[in-house]
Amino acid sequence: MSITGGKGYLRVFITGIEGFVGRHLSAELAEAGHEVSGLYYDDSGIGELAEKIPDLRRGDILDRAELSKILNSVSPDVIVHLGAVSFVPAATKTPLMAWNVNLMGTLNILEWIRTENPDTRLLFVSTSEIYGKPKEGDLPYTERTPIRPENMYAATKAAADIAAERYRNLYDLHIATLRPSNHIGPGQSENFVVSSFAKQVAGAVLGLGDGVIRVGNLSASRDFLDVRDVVRAYRFVLEGGVTGIFNVGSGRAVKISDILDKLVEIAGTDIRVETDPERLRPVDVPIVMVSHKKLLAESGWHPEIPLEKTLEDIFRWWKEKLKK
Amino acid sequence: MSITGGKGYLRVFITGIEGFVGRHLSAELAEAGHEVSGLYYDDSGIGELAEKIPDLRRGDILDRAELSKILNSVSPDVIVHLGAVSFVPAATKTPLMAWNVNLMGTLNILEWIRTENPDTRLLFVSTSEIYGKPKEGDLPYTERTPIRPENMYAATKAAADIAAERYRNLYDLHIATLRPSNHIGPGQSENFVVSSFAKQVAGAVLGLGDGVIRVGNLSASRDFLDVRDVVRAYRFVLEGGVTGIFNVGSGRAVKISDILDKLVEIAGTDIRVETDPERLRPVDVPIVMVSHKKLLAESGWHPEIPLEKTLEDIFRWWKEKLKK
Repeated sequence: MSITGGKGYLRVFITGIEGFVGRHLSAELAEAGHEVSGLYYDDSGIGELAEKIPDLRRGDILDRAELSKILNSVSPDVIVHLGAVSFVPAATKTPLMAWNVNLMGTLNILEWIRTENPDTRLLFVSTSEIYGKPKEGDLPYTERTPIRPENMYAATKAAADIAAERYRNLYDLHIATLRPSNHIGPGQSENFVVSSFAKQVAGAVLGLGDGVIRVGNLSASRDFLDVRDVVRAYRFVLEGGVTGIFNVGSGRAVKISDILDKLVEIAGTDIRVETDPERLRPVDVPIVMVSHKKLLAESGWHPEIPLEKTLEDIFRWWKEKLKK
Repeated sequence: MSITGGKGYLRVFITGIEGFVGRHLSAELAEAGHEVSGLYYDDSGIGELAEKIPDLRRGDILDRAELSKILNSVSPDVIVHLGAVSFVPAATKTPLMAWNVNLMGTLNILEWIRTENPDTRLLFVSTSEIYGKPKEGDLPYTERTPIRPENMYAATKAAADIAAERYRNLYDLHIATLRPSNHIGPGQSENFVVSSFAKQVAGAVLGLGDGVIRVGNLSASRDFLDVRDVVRAYRFVLEGGVTGIFNVGSGRAVKISDILDKLVEIAGTDIRVETDPERLRPVDVPIVMVSHKKLLAESGWHPEIPLEKTLEDIFRWWKEKLKK
C-alpha cells in the first residue's frame, strides 16, 4: 500500500497550526494537494489562517479526552506535532508549564497513537538546541551527537525527543523526529532575534521611532534556515514516509552581527546600532552548525533559499506590516 | 553556617520511603543520628517501617497541593527523591504512568523547592541505566558519558535527570543527582534478577518446590552494588553537601551467570538450572560498568561490601522469609 493509502494525498493534522511554522507548513502542504487540518490554542490571528485551512479545531493538547476525540474525528494519516512553548525565556520563567506542554503534550499524542491508532504516523518536531554547547569535534551536529540541553526549553524538547524515539523503538510506531536549527522568515515573532532586527531596520527606514537599532550580544553564530525550506523538509519527510531521527540544518554558521549588517545593507540607509543592556542575555552556546546529510540521503532534501533572499523577504514583510 | 544549620544533624524527607532503597536509607540515616521522615504511596508492609520511622506520610507525589502541604509541614533540610516506577517492564507496559510518576513527580518536587523553599537541598536518585548501550571506549561510564536510554524506564529517568540538572543550573538550587548502578541486597523484590535467583536457591535448599532454578538470559554483565553501600553513598552526599551529578557504581562488571554460580555455591547443595522461555527478555544492554571516581574524590565514598557477603545476606534473608 502506498504511503497515502491509495488516495494520492495525505490527510495531515498539525498541532500548533497557528504558530509561525504551522502557518507556513499548512500552506506548503495544502499547495501540494494534501488535506490539512489542525489544532490551535491561541485565537489571535486565526481568522486569516481559517480562510486557507477551513478545518481548524481549538483545543488544549493537555486535555487528553478532548485531544483523543478530535484526533478520532479527523482520523489523520499523519500528525505533525508542532505545538510547544518555544520561546526560551518563557520556558525558563514557567518551567512547569513548558514541561507540561512540550513533554506531556507530546506524550498525549504518542499515547493516542499507541493505544488507539497505531497506524497513524507522527512527525515530531524537536530542535537542534538539544545538542547544547558543542564540544571539540562536535560540529556540525549529526544525529549521533550527544544530547546536552543548555536551557529549559531545550531540556523539555530533549525529553520529548527521547520519549518519541522510545515509542518508535519499543512499540514499533511510524515516527520521524526532526531536529531543525534556528528558522527565520516572514511572519516570525519579534521575540526572535532576526525578526526583531528586521522590524527595527524596517521601522528606521519608514522613519518610525528614533532610527536607532537596539541589539543584544551579536557574537554568537547560528545555523539559520528559511522557514520555507524547513517546512519543505517536513513535506519531504511526510511524502517519503521515512522514520527515525533527522537533523534539519544548513550545515553552516552565520554570525548574528553579519545578519544585522546584511539587513542594514538591504535597508540601504545609514542606521545607528546601539547595545541595549536589557537585551544582553548571556550567550550560553557560542556556535551551532547542523548537518543535513542524513536527511538529504533519505529524502533528497537540502536547503534552497539563499540567506540574502530570506532577509529581504523578512525586511519587506515588516515594512508592509509597519505601514498599516 | 554548617550544612545542618547548626543543629548537628539533618532533617531528611525521603519520597518512596517504603521501597527497597527507602527502607535501607532511612535505617542508615536514622542510625547516623539524622531526623528522618518520608512519603509513601504503597501501604503494604508499612507497619514494620513505622516502628523505626514514626513520621511517615501517605500521599501521591502527583498531587502538587498535597505534596506542598506535606513538605511545608515537615520543612526538611534535604529531600531524597526515590519515589519512582522502577521496574522496567512496568514502565514499558504503562508508559504514561511511568512518565507521570518519574518525571512529573520529580518536577513537582523541583517546583516546590524553586517556588516555595529554594534553600531546601535535593538528592535526586537517577540511574546509570540512562547511559544505555555502551559504545566503543564508553566503559566504565563516567558522568560525561552521553545519555542514550534504551528502555522506557531509563527514558523517564533521563528526562528527570536532565530536568534536575537544569533546575540546579538555571535557578542556582542545591541539587545532587546520583546515577547508581544495579543494586542488590536483602529485602529486594523478586522482580529483580538476583533476588529472584536467591529466592529460588533458598527455596530449593528448604525443599520447597521441585528444586529446579528457572532462569532467563544469563549472558549480560552488570555493575552490582550492595544496597547498603548505595545508601551509604547517599549519606556521604547529604553530609558532605556536595552538588552536581555523581555516578554510584563499583567500576566492575559481573556476569549474571557468575552470580547464579556463587549463589548455588553458597547454598552448598546440588541444584538444577533450567532456562525458562518466559524469562528470556532480550538483552538490550550486554555490559555495564559505572565509575565512582568523581564521587570518591568529592565525598570519600567507595563500595566496601564484597559481592560474596551481599549474596550470602540475600540468600539468608530469603531462607528466613521462606521458613515463615
